Amino acid sequence: MDARIAWLNGEYVPLAEAKVSAQDRGFLFADGIYEVTAVLDGRLVESPAHLSRLRRSAAALDIALPIDGAEIEAVERELIARNGLREGGIYLQLTRGAGERDFLSEPDHPTLLLFTQARDVVANPAAESGVAVMTMPDIRWKRRDIKSVMLLAQVLAKRAAREAGAQEAWLVEEGYVTEGASSTALIVTQGGTLVTRPNSDAILPGCTRIGALAAAEKMGLPIAERLFTVEEALAAREAMLTSASNFVLPIVRIDGHPIGDGHPGPIARELRRLYIEAARAG
Amino acid sequence: MDARIAWLNGEYVPLAEAKVSAQDRGFLFADGIYEVTAVLDGRLVESPAHLSRLRRSAAALDIALPIDGAEIEAVERELIARNGLREGGIYLQLTRGAGERDFLSEPDHPTLLLFTQARDVVANPAAESGVAVMTMPDIRWKRRDIKSVMLLAQVLAKRAAREAGAQEAWLVEEGYVTEGASSTALIVTQGGTLVTRPNSDAILPGCTRIGALAAAEKMGLPIAERLFTVEEALAAREAMLTSASNFVLPIVRIDGHPIGDGHPGPIARELRRLYIEAARAG
Repeated sequence: MDARIAWLNGEYVPLAEAKVSAQDRGFLFADGIYEVTAVLDGRLVESPAHLSRLRRSAAALDIALPIDGAEIEAVERELIARNGLREGGIYLQLTRGAGERDFLSEPDHPTLLLFTQARDVVANPAAESGVAVMTMPDIRWKRRDIKSVMLLAQVLAKRAAREAGAQEAWLVEEGYVTEGASSTALIVTQGGTLVTRPNSDAILPGCTRIGALAAAEKMGLPIAERLFTVEEALAAREAMLTSASNFVLPIVRIDGHPIGDGHPGPIARELRRLYIEAARAG
Repeated sequence: MDARIAWLNGEYVPLAEAKVSAQDRGFLFADGIYEVTAVLDGRLVESPAHLSRLRRSAAALDIALPIDGAEIEAVERELIARNGLREGGIYLQLTRGAGERDFLSEPDHPTLLLFTQARDVVANPAAESGVAVMTMPDIRWKRRDIKSVMLLAQVLAKRAAREAGAQEAWLVEEGYVTEGASSTALIVTQGGTLVTRPNSDAILPGCTRIGALAAAEKMGLPIAERLFTVEEALAAREAMLTSASNFVLPIVRIDGHPIGDGHPGPIARELRRLYIEAARAG
């Protein structure tokens, strides 16, 4: 039995009993947005970046946040305390609310849900083994900069990746990698430059990406924010992904081809170490 | 107070009290599909086509239908009876079900929801006035042939159309109209040919479109299933839309420009009449 306590529209409720109206626009229209904020040592990681992105996504959908950033953080801290969460994440979802099914209905109140998920983020075995990635066409909508719950393409991509024995899908548009199904995509060229796609409406502006790039700067690594192809990734010295659920993870195979020597590379390992160090320092 | 009775996972419940888990994948991932079947004179319209499309969408997502087509129709008829529905539609949604939030979670049971919506489909004032359409870029994902609840792009398109005083958005890709945000797009050329885009993964295979094309054949109208541009639509003799919620509706303005003489055209009116006649005949 799941004993977690969630927060739904102003009340703390058992997650197992947390229910939303069957007419919620999040359910009927994917008319909603979300954030996942990592928790390390019982503390929020990169909370200002997640709150800022939440406000940006909410504005894009013209949904008003029912409580402000400080109140959201207070709820998050209370959920961490009530659930005894040391490591993992907090999931937050905001939708336009429940109302008669009509594309244009405007419910009186949005729906806001938060719950916790415990997960070994630091002692993640994938940090040692590295992960395998499968590339596939990016069939998502064009506003990927909005962190919406329009995630079916990503679900199908992850299912296809699993089928192929991979743990993440890299999505490809016009020959260039956009991003992972649930992570930012990065490579290290043979020349030693860290390459990742610049932010645009083609990708989600990653919160963990910001911290990882800051760590790379600290390492004195040359950084190039530019598009890169699958071919370039296959020929890279290293590849990696960043996400709030995984921080930095080395990628060791792409479409079955080993990257570098097929083991987690030293730059990915060092970026991961520095990222965790900075997250711990708060 | 909404007195409607809905059907949710095997039980008849008041719609106002129908709730789904906050961990339902329809809510968290838009991992679900839907159908809207019109009801006329208390009877289902084009039910086999909707059931066939439902099976097709479910297969694309690899979700098993918890009850078969005959059972779905039995539930639909019971909902029509319990809610005294004469005219409007039945909304059906199937999701992968509720489970821990993870892209790859596989709940034991899908979620199936059905509810009714009363609406004047025949005596719709828009059939007399015609509707105004606004064109905009089609930013949706690439599997529009799946009738998924990934509808945020359509919601945003309809909101932008409303802002501009239009009732529907026509979505445009590479210069060609794909379809309306919630309808099939059709034009009648100056030469008198009914033109609509052929089915592909770029559009939803419309159920009402099938009936409308059958009516056009009955009229002896030349039909061309091909792509058409916005320019061609602006120069058309008539334009119209088809959908289960509206049957056939004449379009009288596109981006502020009158189509034909700016009033509902005779072909759209006749197609609407024939469609309703055929729907009534069952």
